[in-house]
Amino acid sequence: MSKEVKPESVSLCPLGAAAAPEQELLCIFGTGDLGRSLGQRLLQAGYRVVYGSRRPHSCGPLPVGAQVLSHAAAAQSSSLVFLCVHREHYDFLESLVPQLKGKVLVDVSNNLEKNLYPEANAEYLQRLIPGAHVVKAFNTLSAWALQNGPSDANRQVYLCGNSSEAKQAVAETATKLGFTVLDRGSLSTARELEDFPLRLFPEWRLPLRIAVGLTAFFFFYLLIRDVVYSYVAQGKNTSFRIMVSLANKVFPIVSLIMLSLCYLPGVIAAILQLYRGTKYKRFPDWLDRWMLCRKQLGLLALGFASLHVLYTLIIPIRYYVRYKISASTIEQIKENQTSEFNISYAWRGDSYYSMGILGFCLFLLLGITSLPSVSNALSWREFSFIQSKLGYLTLFFCTFHTYLYGWDRFLRPATYKWYTVPGFMLSLVVPTALLILKLLLLMPCVDRTLTRIRQGWERCDPEDDSKKSLLT
Amino acid sequence: MSKEVKPESVSLCPLGAAAAPEQELLCIFGTGDLGRSLGQRLLQAGYRVVYGSRRPHSCGPLPVGAQVLSHAAAAQSSSLVFLCVHREHYDFLESLVPQLKGKVLVDVSNNLEKNLYPEANAEYLQRLIPGAHVVKAFNTLSAWALQNGPSDANRQVYLCGNSSEAKQAVAETATKLGFTVLDRGSLSTARELEDFPLRLFPEWRLPLRIAVGLTAFFFFYLLIRDVVYSYVAQGKNTSFRIMVSLANKVFPIVSLIMLSLCYLPGVIAAILQLYRGTKYKRFPDWLDRWMLCRKQLGLLALGFASLHVLYTLIIPIRYYVRYKISASTIEQIKENQTSEFNISYAWRGDSYYSMGILGFCLFLLLGITSLPSVSNALSWREFSFIQSKLGYLTLFFCTFHTYLYGWDRFLRPATYKWYTVPGFMLSLVVPTALLILKLLLLMPCVDRTLTRIRQGWERCDPEDDSKKSLLT
Amino acid sequence: MSKEVKPESVSLCPLGAAAAPEQELLCIFGTGDLGRSLGQRLLQAGYRVVYGSRRPHSCGPLPVGAQVLSHAAAAQSSSLVFLCVHREHYDFLESLVPQLKGKVLVDVSNNLEKNLYPEANAEYLQRLIPGAHVVKAFNTLSAWALQNGPSDANRQVYLCGNSSEAKQAVAETATKLGFTVLDRGSLSTARELEDFPLRLFPEWRLPLRIAVGLTAFFFFYLLIRDVVYSYVAQGKNTSFRIMVSLANKVFPIVSLIMLSLCYLPGVIAAILQLYRGTKYKRFPDWLDRWMLCRKQLGLLALGFASLHVLYTLIIPIRYYVRYKISASTIEQIKENQTSEFNISYAWRGDSYYSMGILGFCLFLLLGITSLPSVSNALSWREFSFIQSKLGYLTLFFCTFHTYLYGWDRFLRPATYKWYTVPGFMLSLVVPTALLILKLLLLMPCVDRTLTRIRQGWERCDPEDDSKKSLLT
Repeated sequence: MSKEVKPESVSLCPLGAAAAPEQELLCIFGTGDLGRSLGQRLLQAGYRVVYGSRRPHSCGPLPVGAQVLSHAAAAQSSSLVFLCVHREHYDFLESLVPQLKGKVLVDVSNNLEKNLYPEANAEYLQRLIPGAHVVKAFNTLSAWALQNGPSDANRQVYLCGNSSEAKQAVAETATKLGFTVLDRGSLSTARELEDFPLRLFPEWRLPLRIAVGLTAFFFFYLLIRDVVYSYVAQGKNTSFRIMVSLANKVFPIVSLIMLSLCYLPGVIAAILQLYRGTKYKRFPDWLDRWMLCRKQLGLLALGFASLHVLYTLIIPIRYYVRYKISASTIEQIKENQTSEFNISYAWRGDSYYSMGILGFCLFLLLGITSLPSVSNALSWREFSFIQSKLGYLTLFFCTFHTYLYGWDRFLRPATYKWYTVPGFMLSLVVPTALLILKLLLLMPCVDRTLTRIRQGWERCDPEDDSKKSLLT
Repeated sequence: MSKEVKPESVSLCPLGAAAAPEQELLCIFGTGDLGRSLGQRLLQAGYRVVYGSRRPHSCGPLPVGAQVLSHAAAAQSSSLVFLCVHREHYDFLESLVPQLKGKVLVDVSNNLEKNLYPEANAEYLQRLIPGAHVVKAFNTLSAWALQNGPSDANRQVYLCGNSSEAKQAVAETATKLGFTVLDRGSLSTARELEDFPLRLFPEWRLPLRIAVGLTAFFFFYLLIRDVVYSYVAQGKNTSFRIMVSLANKVFPIVSLIMLSLCYLPGVIAAILQLYRGTKYKRFPDWLDRWMLCRKQLGLLALGFASLHVLYTLIIPIRYYVRYKISASTIEQIKENQTSEFNISYAWRGDSYYSMGILGFCLFLLLGITSLPSVSNALSWREFSFIQSKLGYLTLFFCTFHTYLYGWDRFLRPATYKWYTVPGFMLSLVVPTALLILKLLLLMPCVDRTLTRIRQGWERCDPEDDSKKSLLT
Repeated sequence: MSKEVKPESVSLCPLGAAAAPEQELLCIFGTGDLGRSLGQRLLQAGYRVVYGSRRPHSCGPLPVGAQVLSHAAAAQSSSLVFLCVHREHYDFLESLVPQLKGKVLVDVSNNLEKNLYPEANAEYLQRLIPGAHVVKAFNTLSAWALQNGPSDANRQVYLCGNSSEAKQAVAETATKLGFTVLDRGSLSTARELEDFPLRLFPEWRLPLRIAVGLTAFFFFYLLIRDVVYSYVAQGKNTSFRIMVSLANKVFPIVSLIMLSLCYLPGVIAAILQLYRGTKYKRFPDWLDRWMLCRKQLGLLALGFASLHVLYTLIIPIRYYVRYKISASTIEQIKENQTSEFNISYAWRGDSYYSMGILGFCLFLLLGITSLPSVSNALSWREFSFIQSKLGYLTLFFCTFHTYLYGWDRFLRPATYKWYTVPGFMLSLVVPTALLILKLLLLMPCVDRTLTRIRQGWERCDPEDDSKKSLLT
């Protein structure tokens, strides 16, 4: 397609304006999409670019200003070679071992799946060409960022490699392209860098599943209790309640349960350590996995709490609510009977709102401190103070808020329609149990033992066989 | 003014307590404000400081503990020289070439305007004194931070230079002063560092202008339709509606339009790529500029959406609203005619609120993930999932929310006062068109072609001349 | 307790599967909790680990796969030695000077209190073993993070030391363990690193105390005015008002005062500089301390403002408010007297809400830009534009909001119950004074002088003795 373009791009004649003669010359192996994008960006940044290609005369359109040579010639012309080739085609490099000796070889490749190969692409490459200084870099960027420079999630270039001079050279280039460089150490971390672009919220999956599961369960549970019941038992169509009233019951329930699920594993771990008398035994796998997604559980709970807040605040502008209030006023007038102002009722309602607001604000604070830049600025003593002390205070406020919501409903028979328990009571089970357990753990005698265990002390059991499993 | 001070500060005699003899001696050229601030800070950090001055005996007050010498003597006494002099006065350095040979020369200067000189100050300096190791550093800090140490936007010292040993030496000093150091590469990035302090939200200007323009237009448009119309046609003074009712119509309209403006360039780019059959042709300049300010457009839209939320939530505490509700209740009683509860109206209202809340919460999520520290922690696959998939979902929710607001008003003739269209209908034009276009792009046949183009495939046109412009 | 474990762990025989023979061998001195945690993590990361112990045959359980040797033998086997020993026990190292020569010695220790010793642990260590390359590292991590890898506030390993090769070696290891490394410079910053884990919000203490003090004062003040007064003078029990009504008066008052306290020191500093005619005189200590906690004052004020917003938004769903509205409607009907719609009252109310919302949104913006990752991305010109210009605008909106709240109450005698001033008037004193002072400072003649002083100009006083104190 580009007969007009190639002759000039193969020649070594004066190049376009973008490539001033004194500029550094970089080599790119591979004329596919990745190679072209990278080349265009390097040219824009003022570098001269030479492509290495198997068929230098028929390799399709390349950025104007770039040359195309054979692999061997291209490799010899530059001290830095970008490898924009799929791992499956690395074999051709074996013939270039002499030309690549002492060169910096930048591996930009990614795989389509995790664990496709036993070793990382970059490590495989280093094994193929032991004389080159392999650096893994640029692979975590999107093709768009490679072509157009840094954008939001594409500011940082991670690199790793065994030669610090080679890494320095690559870092220079990355900096000139506008990126920030993060050195991740030796080539053995290449696998981690290669897995990074394939991630799609792995640590959020379990918490999201829990959230969806709880939401679905409580939605149908409350649908039956609130809408179906009133239709079947009272013949009233209250289906419109689904959109706001029902949602505003499901969200706080899920939020409270997930908040307590976020603190439960810590308490379970403490009990396990107390029971075992040591902290050097590994926790069961399920507990480990649970502990690792506490932050995500908490943030999802905060999301549900925010929805609850917004759904609550729009209550007074709802048509249904305005209608009901107006109807009750009209009723009072018609029956000429004014209801008395009930101070204890006012106390209960206001406390209920106050607890909710304080709990939500503390919850927001927890959320803000879990932002990476904020938590990085805290010492772990500060971080654990907030996440643990203030976290339990948040849980206490929210649980108390729910108890105040219940108030005398716990004793009213009308609450238990069709012999089912209302949703908010179900939501209180886990947090209440958690708070009681935590209180027990805070008792001086228990707390002292736990602290000693966590400082490395171990209880000497008389039975010998239990010790054998230690530290395995 | 300081006859008492100078004799001691010129002598090489024992200095103040702050300067213990074993401390490193640093040299500062320039006794202006910048030089003094820096010197004071260096003294506080435990360094010894010597000033180089043209007139060592009459250079005004200097920090106690510092010496003053001639330029040549000062340069010889230290291996690191800070240059706190305006670029216009660099000439005097030419006579110091021998003394500065092999020294680290830190250029702290800034210009008053962008592009005042053809080359960066630091590059000019390096050309003047080729034997010195020029490092550009500290210029992005405010004078306040130089004098008092790191504060909020002044934690990071950017530096660049060609000698890594020189950069290391400067980095040490900056770290001792309490700053975090970011190496930006070779001296060719000096220009970027020199432009940095002159920035004042350059990427926010276009979006802000769009926001102000849209706000002004819709404010006057709605002022005429709502306030002027009711005054002229109905003789009612509803001017008080300006503060809340009108604002609460303008904000959501501007927010929705700006949110869709944030996604429109992506769709236009896709159509352009489909039409051209390649991704290697550059986009027109206006599209490039538009693409670059999408984040800012989105964040401003989020700001307007937040205002809309707050303005909506205070509705029920407004005097006007309370008056109207009370008046309608009284009316009903007087006419002894109770309005029927309308289920479909309740459904519509509740769905309207629900869509709005869900859209706003998703929107907030988009905003949070665009915080630098959060987006840096995401892989680009994750980032594009959120910004693209969840972004369109947000747009859909918000557009649907607006349609639900319209409801049957689209068909009511009373809506079209003075033959004008209500504001919310105008706001629906862009998002509706955008969503339809996006749907078309998602059709399998179109989507497949687009994906191939974005992976580097190019359509071979039969016409040859169209190809020539490729990649220019 | 572990007769079965020790024989194998002392021998040099083939180790467990985790330690492949080609892996690097690292040495840990100290078999306490810290040493064990670190060892376990190093083994998991693929290193081989050897412990140095005084009593290699009776040192308690150690991670499976680790060896235990005498200190001397262990030190000789590895080029990198982690020192997980309390500073009090460093003496034993003196006998190991020959074995540790040229080795990298990583000091992980922390003290239980600040300023317990005249010099930092790491500096003391370097003095003890001058031949070793001491690196301070890992001490800012929690034991949990050392054992289990990076978590929220434990992502960054700060390190410092005098040898950059030694630091590089430690950085490699830290990176392999999954941490991000921040080089803090030479060993003289060790003290700072050792103080870091002991911090518990030192810069928040003063602002928190001010906040608690103001809250307590205004709570009791308003309790007397609102609840006690109406009980004593009118015999009405309005105690339920404590939970919401009273809180919603205290929060905005404290918020407004703290916001103005956040800008007051800047104005005082400017007046002081104008009075002294120089910027080179140090501010009094109290002013310095006040200036340093402005950010915290502002963020606390934002917290109180958020509480105020939430407490305001729930007003219409409160039982008390609904009761009162319904009662007033019933009253109107019974007395058959409809109140007229008051346009100026509607204007005032809507303006009051508008000012509040705009002020709060600007306040939120200030809060967002003070997030570390956002403020780091701003140039200081941008940061000071937001924090100063927008900050004063915020203050103006909030003050105006409060004046609109007052409206005609300033003149009504009923406002001054028991001859006391209502809370909101008290809250207006500081911001009003501040805004007037700021206006005076913005007058051209004053502003010009101030700008010159801040650029380093000094007023020449005729009196000589006042000059002597310059720059001391």
